[in-house]
Amino acid sequence: MTENTQTNLSCLLCGPGKVRFEEREVPVVEDPHDILVRISYVGVCGSDAHFWTHGGVIRMVSEEEPLVMGHEASGVVFSVGPAVTKVVPGDRVAIEPGFPCRRCTQCKAGKYNLCPEIQFAADPPRAHGTLARFFRAPEDFVYKVPESVSLQEAVLVEPLAVAVHGARIAQIAPGDNVLVQGSGTIGLLAAAVSKAFGAKAIFVADINKAKLDFAKQFVEECLTFIPDTKSTPEEEAIRFKREMNLSNGVDVVLECTGVESSARTGIFASAAGSTFVQIGLGKPDLNLPILAMCEKETVLKTAWRYSPGDYDIALDLLASGKINVKSLISSIVPFTDAAVAWERTKRGEGIKNLIEGVRD
Amino acid sequence: MTENTQTNLSCLLCGPGKVRFEEREVPVVEDPHDILVRISYVGVCGSDAHFWTHGGVIRMVSEEEPLVMGHEASGVVFSVGPAVTKVVPGDRVAIEPGFPCRRCTQCKAGKYNLCPEIQFAADPPRAHGTLARFFRAPEDFVYKVPESVSLQEAVLVEPLAVAVHGARIAQIAPGDNVLVQGSGTIGLLAAAVSKAFGAKAIFVADINKAKLDFAKQFVEECLTFIPDTKSTPEEEAIRFKREMNLSNGVDVVLECTGVESSARTGIFASAAGSTFVQIGLGKPDLNLPILAMCEKETVLKTAWRYSPGDYDIALDLLASGKINVKSLISSIVPFTDAAVAWERTKRGEGIKNLIEGVRD
Amino acid sequence: MTENTQTNLSCLLCGPGKVRFEEREVPVVEDPHDILVRISYVGVCGSDAHFWTHGGVIRMVSEEEPLVMGHEASGVVFSVGPAVTKVVPGDRVAIEPGFPCRRCTQCKAGKYNLCPEIQFAADPPRAHGTLARFFRAPEDFVYKVPESVSLQEAVLVEPLAVAVHGARIAQIAPGDNVLVQGSGTIGLLAAAVSKAFGAKAIFVADINKAKLDFAKQFVEECLTFIPDTKSTPEEEAIRFKREMNLSNGVDVVLECTGVESSARTGIFASAAGSTFVQIGLGKPDLNLPILAMCEKETVLKTAWRYSPGDYDIALDLLASGKINVKSLISSIVPFTDAAVAWERTKRGEGIKNLIEGVRD
Amino acid sequence: MTENTQTNLSCLLCGPGKVRFEEREVPVVEDPHDILVRISYVGVCGSDAHFWTHGGVIRMVSEEEPLVMGHEASGVVFSVGPAVTKVVPGDRVAIEPGFPCRRCTQCKAGKYNLCPEIQFAADPPRAHGTLARFFRAPEDFVYKVPESVSLQEAVLVEPLAVAVHGARIAQIAPGDNVLVQGSGTIGLLAAAVSKAFGAKAIFVADINKAKLDFAKQFVEECLTFIPDTKSTPEEEAIRFKREMNLSNGVDVVLECTGVESSARTGIFASAAGSTFVQIGLGKPDLNLPILAMCEKETVLKTAWRYSPGDYDIALDLLASGKINVKSLISSIVPFTDAAVAWERTKRGEGIKNLIEGVRD
Repeated sequence: MTENTQTNLSCLLCGPGKVRFEEREVPVVEDPHDILVRISYVGVCGSDAHFWTHGGVIRMVSEEEPLVMGHEASGVVFSVGPAVTKVVPGDRVAIEPGFPCRRCTQCKAGKYNLCPEIQFAADPPRAHGTLARFFRAPEDFVYKVPESVSLQEAVLVEPLAVAVHGARIAQIAPGDNVLVQGSGTIGLLAAAVSKAFGAKAIFVADINKAKLDFAKQFVEECLTFIPDTKSTPEEEAIRFKREMNLSNGVDVVLECTGVESSARTGIFASAAGSTFVQIGLGKPDLNLPILAMCEKETVLKTAWRYSPGDYDIALDLLASGKINVKSLISSIVPFTDAAVAWERTKRGEGIKNLIEGVRD
Repeated sequence: MTENTQTNLSCLLCGPGKVRFEEREVPVVEDPHDILVRISYVGVCGSDAHFWTHGGVIRMVSEEEPLVMGHEASGVVFSVGPAVTKVVPGDRVAIEPGFPCRRCTQCKAGKYNLCPEIQFAADPPRAHGTLARFFRAPEDFVYKVPESVSLQEAVLVEPLAVAVHGARIAQIAPGDNVLVQGSGTIGLLAAAVSKAFGAKAIFVADINKAKLDFAKQFVEECLTFIPDTKSTPEEEAIRFKREMNLSNGVDVVLECTGVESSARTGIFASAAGSTFVQIGLGKPDLNLPILAMCEKETVLKTAWRYSPGDYDIALDLLASGKINVKSLISSIVPFTDAAVAWERTKRGEGIKNLIEGVRD
Repeated sequence: MTENTQTNLSCLLCGPGKVRFEEREVPVVEDPHDILVRISYVGVCGSDAHFWTHGGVIRMVSEEEPLVMGHEASGVVFSVGPAVTKVVPGDRVAIEPGFPCRRCTQCKAGKYNLCPEIQFAADPPRAHGTLARFFRAPEDFVYKVPESVSLQEAVLVEPLAVAVHGARIAQIAPGDNVLVQGSGTIGLLAAAVSKAFGAKAIFVADINKAKLDFAKQFVEECLTFIPDTKSTPEEEAIRFKREMNLSNGVDVVLECTGVESSARTGIFASAAGSTFVQIGLGKPDLNLPILAMCEKETVLKTAWRYSPGDYDIALDLLASGKINVKSLISSIVPFTDAAVAWERTKRGEGIKNLIEGVRD
Repeated sequence: MTENTQTNLSCLLCGPGKVRFEEREVPVVEDPHDILVRISYVGVCGSDAHFWTHGGVIRMVSEEEPLVMGHEASGVVFSVGPAVTKVVPGDRVAIEPGFPCRRCTQCKAGKYNLCPEIQFAADPPRAHGTLARFFRAPEDFVYKVPESVSLQEAVLVEPLAVAVHGARIAQIAPGDNVLVQGSGTIGLLAAAVSKAFGAKAIFVADINKAKLDFAKQFVEECLTFIPDTKSTPEEEAIRFKREMNLSNGVDVVLECTGVESSARTGIFASAAGSTFVQIGLGKPDLNLPILAMCEKETVLKTAWRYSPGDYDIALDLLASGKINVKSLISSIVPFTDAAVAWERTKRGEGIKNLIEGVRD
């Protein structure tokens, strides 16, 4: 396994709906702390589907400037730089896919997720992604996966870290009633994480009943709510509080949809002094009930990727069995069928669709 | 001075633009901790002008249910309950005008400003205001005014406490660049308070050049900015950062206007990881750039009145001379001309217009 | 049940080892928010045993100034003041036994446990205790006990709230390795609470192997450590870290013994940037390794009783089944045998010894 | 100035009281972010005097393993690596003398001062110091000094950053009464920083009246206290509170002596809920009144060097004129007389004694 295959088959997006496979150079371990990982599985998230459909977000990919896709990934350590002590070749790992500059104010303040020079996988123009035979990462962004966690599950550490980040920002603790809005991958994980953080009660809201039924299985004892889109957010918030028997509203809202009516309902459903965390991304603007927020001194926080410690916690939640993500994995396609996984995700099929790494 | 005049001439609003003066019963000191204050001055704020124009906010006053106006007030202690130890009759005092229940979750958690049963002066239907000969308050909401502070200035403790509350919520400290939006009474005081909290640089933005000229005198060394309303908030934020030589944007925004374009400009002008505090109230909804906020993990906090300690700090800032509010007092009218002060405030004349208490 | 028996049989301490039973006046519900509780069970804690042995701590009891004992208590609501809405006569309740002034700086800042005028049960000279037929408490210090929790278990809400308070002060969260020192009632509950707060790993240290064996049953998956009192704290900390495979030490120490060598071992066993919370009380002075603390910026916090929210959380932990305290109840004696329970606790027999309320 | 002199005259300690000057190799700018600084001034602190007297702290220097001394330093940029954008050759700079690994948990959590692999100037065996013609530092640990600040004053940024670190850890803000214990360099700067952070009142305690007289000039309006060493700390704390008219004690203690009686007095002199920060280092152990601390939930924090942002704030305090350190500079000796400055500091002469850099 340690002999290098010398090629680095990669899956690139080169336009909306245009995929290309090409042999690229194998990354060289230059920095003594670098690690070369043989990719095992890559997950697909909503942003991948958006790239697949639109060819990018701000900077568009093209035939001339294609992009190696993928940012949720697990793999096996192939080789390590001389200073690496944390893993050895053969170790099974999850990869945290954003490498910050380590020198800016944000990095040094403990917020590397806000580093303006971060090289985030598949985020053009700075960095290609993980959907290739090999991927290089610094030692401290590679996490050994415990025996009890499969490499397929290890892909889920990435979205789980997003949920952990939101829960930590919200400072969820015992005594808190938590409303999670949206029961997609992030919403489901946010609900599970809220439970692991000791939340008193967890409410999950979604307009899709089937998703909520799954949520009830995924997070034992969570309560669910289907907003009526014909009513106003304020009315739905009142109904929510009445049905859930919450005289004061929830203490924390984890908004995982990015949808305006959902955000508004969450704010109206929260108690005085509560914390609302925007995790989901949607439209660039949201019309928010600022007067209602002022009257109860709502704190609105926003969550961006993950910060130091989130990956460690996410992995521990899997390792300890507090969260089990097996049931979230809906499909696995071979490397060369990556576009099939993107299409499925685009159509909203399944929860987490995986792409296998290159077979030897 | 200690003989009771037995009547309590009060100034009531009984409809939009309708004022009425009537003799009401003198409040009785029933609770051993209560204090009866002979009112000296009452300040007029934007909400008074709104009441004067519209007859209320949610609950409207009427001839049948008129309201004693006034919530910014200073006075002289007239009598005290047997348990009072903090002041004696004759002491000059500022009054904190909201009396919480002391028993609810919010009160016990140190957030009495969020008490659902708070009796806030001139906030119908729960409580009448301070614009009367006498006003009753619990001992711990009455603050002795030091010799160096006049009873006219003591009225300003109320808006100053609003500014202190915002600065404390924002956790302003040395090293912070602070943008204050709006240079009305609250904006001016927020800028002065930011300085007292040790802010590195203070920027004040307003569309009114005359107000900014005053701001420059009121807060030494503050820098000012006039947004061009023909440009977008995003463009104006870029211009602001360029003109102020701020590569990363400000660390704290104290939004004191409630205007959407102002809030948006503030958010775009702030650095990654910054805190935005909504202090000013305007429209019930604001359309906010949530994606830009997420990308830099903006924390949006909202400020409501004042919480424990704010009045003490506000008074100390006056007593120590760190802030001098004399220049903010624009006019003083006799008690029976209260409507003149409301009209002036409605027309935007002056900064802080005062109403004298009832003359003996 | 609602007819008043008109007498209030009470158990008083009147000197070291001197107990006295006397009929005292039934407390009158004067304040509209007051509640009269018929006491069901009273727990005995170390401080009761200390009182029993020494006759007090600072202020000594005497035949002339005896003290009604008891501060851990459950009961049934007997009558309520007209403003009470939270419970009705017949409701089963746990009592939070300290009633603060609600007016001082500490009370208003959300720290009523630091109120200098708090009337804490059985804390002379301010207040008698709960070991009587009847006890009066304000509505907001009486907590309805859910069906699933017995009145015997409800007595344990008091020490559980102490543990919750410590965990909240320590801000325990997922990812944290927690060392609990001491496996008496508070240590056991602190370990259980740490788990409920999501701690990654929980270590319990005690010199008593039998107690640790119990701890292992009480808190699933906790690891235990027996310090060798012949070695230095620094040596034992090194051994602890080696045996527990902790390269950096623990993130949180909950010190529940008050013993100097234990505190020192905890500090040496903790990682850089960790939090150490002193919960247990022992000698008035502790010799602490301040240089070692400075080099790793240890934060030493101290915990005193419970603050707002702790009782709610403690009750919810019982109600939800996250913590089950049944196994901590070692014995129950009739009211008139109170001294037997004190003696047992003095001799270190059992974990929590209860005294029954007066039988009708 | 930009031609390299090719030699690097350095001042080394090679045993207690043994100094040696030798030409060492000029550091090479290898990393693209590195900067080579021509040292202008080096300050002497208590730890230098300790080294001079004892030959080290844990690891002793020797003829075979001598140590280049110095960690407080200013200078002029001599050359820069290709990636450096913050300064250009010729820029006047202050140097932050500890270079962390940037990869460990502490570094990434925003606490590089706790990095176990930090290379701190003149801290054997990891790093030599700044007392040489040239010193190399990464770009982000070199701070451009504004025109208004001399290179002599720039040396004081280091101890000022220590004081800033303590004040930030204590979260000093308006409304706080602050007791600074010790009026040596750090104590004086801690008092000045407390004022810049907006403290309500600042008290400085020292047994040396002359030092307190200086403190009164250095920090306008600070109040001073001379503890009577014949009384107990508890008695002195009572006298302090009485004389300063503080019914509740201070809100923050900045302990800058490391002396046990001083620490104890500080704790007894503080209010319930206060924060005590140990900044000064002395004996490895302190006997602390833990029971008194528990009863008022004292939070004891410990301060180690400086963390991200402290240097920026310290420089801004100098640049803005909020703190003027000129009067703290007591003497300046030529490079080859370094031992004279160490001796003076050892004898307690002067406040801050400087050593000039190598003259060309």
